[in-house]
Amino acid sequence: MAESAGTVETKYYFFDGSFRLESDALLENMVIAYETYGNLNSEDDNAVLICHALSGDAHAAGYHPGEQKPGWWDDMIGPGKAFDTEKYFVICSNILGGCKGSTGPASIYKETGEPYGLTFPVITISDMVNAQKLLIDYLGIKKILTVAGGSMGGMQGLQWSISYPEMVQSCIPIATTYKHSAQQIAFDEVGRQAIMSDPRWENGDYYGKEHPFGGLSVARMIGHITYMSDTSMEQKFGRALKKKEYGYDFTQEFEVEGYLRHRGNNFIQRFDANSYLYITKAMDYFDIQKNHSLFRAFQYIKKTKFLVIAFSSDWLYPSYQSREIVKACKMNGIDVTYCEISSDYGHDAFLIEFPEETKLITHFLEKVKNDLVYAKK
Amino acid sequence: MAESAGTVETKYYFFDGSFRLESDALLENMVIAYETYGNLNSEDDNAVLICHALSGDAHAAGYHPGEQKPGWWDDMIGPGKAFDTEKYFVICSNILGGCKGSTGPASIYKETGEPYGLTFPVITISDMVNAQKLLIDYLGIKKILTVAGGSMGGMQGLQWSISYPEMVQSCIPIATTYKHSAQQIAFDEVGRQAIMSDPRWENGDYYGKEHPFGGLSVARMIGHITYMSDTSMEQKFGRALKKKEYGYDFTQEFEVEGYLRHRGNNFIQRFDANSYLYITKAMDYFDIQKNHSLFRAFQYIKKTKFLVIAFSSDWLYPSYQSREIVKACKMNGIDVTYCEISSDYGHDAFLIEFPEETKLITHFLEKVKNDLVYAKK
Repeated sequence: MAESAGTVETKYYFFDGSFRLESDALLENMVIAYETYGNLNSEDDNAVLICHALSGDAHAAGYHPGEQKPGWWDDMIGPGKAFDTEKYFVICSNILGGCKGSTGPASIYKETGEPYGLTFPVITISDMVNAQKLLIDYLGIKKILTVAGGSMGGMQGLQWSISYPEMVQSCIPIATTYKHSAQQIAFDEVGRQAIMSDPRWENGDYYGKEHPFGGLSVARMIGHITYMSDTSMEQKFGRALKKKEYGYDFTQEFEVEGYLRHRGNNFIQRFDANSYLYITKAMDYFDIQKNHSLFRAFQYIKKTKFLVIAFSSDWLYPSYQSREIVKACKMNGIDVTYCEISSDYGHDAFLIEFPEETKLITHFLEKVKNDLVYAKK
Repeated sequence: MAESAGTVETKYYFFDGSFRLESDALLENMVIAYETYGNLNSEDDNAVLICHALSGDAHAAGYHPGEQKPGWWDDMIGPGKAFDTEKYFVICSNILGGCKGSTGPASIYKETGEPYGLTFPVITISDMVNAQKLLIDYLGIKKILTVAGGSMGGMQGLQWSISYPEMVQSCIPIATTYKHSAQQIAFDEVGRQAIMSDPRWENGDYYGKEHPFGGLSVARMIGHITYMSDTSMEQKFGRALKKKEYGYDFTQEFEVEGYLRHRGNNFIQRFDANSYLYITKAMDYFDIQKNHSLFRAFQYIKKTKFLVIAFSSDWLYPSYQSREIVKACKMNGIDVTYCEISSDYGHDAFLIEFPEETKLITHFLEKVKNDLVYAKK
């Protein structure tokens, strides 16, 4: 019976050196918020790194004291779950540039005593991964059994595999891509423009004043449309009205309107608008090929095993993008398994279709673990 | 050889009665802007009504004096073209609620001497059609050979066929739907929220002051993503940069970002934000079934012939929605032809794929015309 990871707390890692970013900028006093579930074994071969998506955070599983809502991937992480905390030592950290404990644009810049705002340097997926690497080193972990994540979490997984191939035993990229496409950049850019065209944004210098809530809410609403599918929206809302009849006005009339506004309003209470800009920008920069071919990007990977998962109705990160990753792995002789899960839930499926994900991941991790034990003998 | 409809001008029809809307509200002093190309023949059997989409207007073909850019469907309307102005009398009018000459929220309300703003009544696709009907009556036209249009223009065509079945000989709905789906409502709602959350919108009372250009531009950018396809965006822009290297800032870096901002900036110079609200709302209300089945919606159509055209990569108005229309026609014994044009251009295809549209429409109209002549004998 699957149980909860229990009461958990967010911890903080303070890096006191200078952290060099891909842009060559230096970041001082970097903090990385993280949580861990389960225990690192004496062989140091059961560490699992979970990477979160755009609006996620370090709180992936279990409950914070006094809270009713568990972490964002609690269905997948805990005793007897896909990432079984009785077997694995699971780590999740808030990304660099985020607003849930790790250093980001809302953090105080030591030199000025004010929030960074737009003086925060632009970051990339590689920078997020390199910051996580410092945390992993600090935790005394030499090898990672698997790096797993959906959406932007999958991009981090791919980047980990390519940046630190000797360290990553396996990788589970879910509902993700190897490069942001023009359409993916376009959706992100519209979200950014919604924020930046809100006069309250004030070039990012809104802290202590009214925040650009209108723009941020619109950005989130756009996001939510892309996270669902035409089918799931039709099934969930159709043309259902909140009232009995048409009101012939601009209040929330259709259920789907109410849902989107609710999602937008929820989001602005927990997310920083500047973080939204920085994180979407990092995704837009993401292209693991870096002016070369996808085949070449994977060429230094020897032993890392891949489980690539996509969802049939995900049109934000369509499955053909996952299949390209699989092809590049195959062409490099990399051990790769591909599964497309049939689902109507669109991109959100990676947060919903946990029974199937659990089966796939459970067996994959057992195999990776067994192969590792066998190799050591 | 296809030629231009030549120099054309927008004319205005003033309706001096009270116009009752679907909401039961009354509109006084309604003006409908329209253009005509070609001549009505003595048999009164060659009138073609073209209905425009969200951002279109009455200027569908030919050139306004001194202008370099022809009307929005000039590829399709003119001597020797699909809607051959040597054979047909082509009419296009700006929709009710628009901002290109027909009465809309930016028009002056006679009682106050001020623009309507949000005091303008909410309108529906039926209202647009009923207003066009007054214009058609005024022009002395008893029968319409065909009503044609793409996107929202197709919705008007369908509504014409159902509201005035005896008057419409044929209908050509292109890249459209019989009801707005949850996803279509969602995209419209986000566009409206972008406008309404712009503080400059001021509850619609922005005339003579700064307009909510930021919000309107974002709404248009969202629209443009939905008008293209993943493939066409990838082909046109991919990950191409405006500069040589990443700038690590929030200026327009990717070509696709520049394109969207350009489209947004262009639009705000020619479109009224309140009209955007009213027109998208009219589309969201559109459901030709009206609480019944699609089969029943078409039951009073006897002689109207349909040519339904959809495009393979159109994900805003996917082809399955067109096929539902075809099915309802077939089930009612209505003469219907369906063509799905293979195209990478997404929803925009109806404005681009004119060689194929021309062939389909030319032959369809000839057949409708011949059948009409035959029936008269």
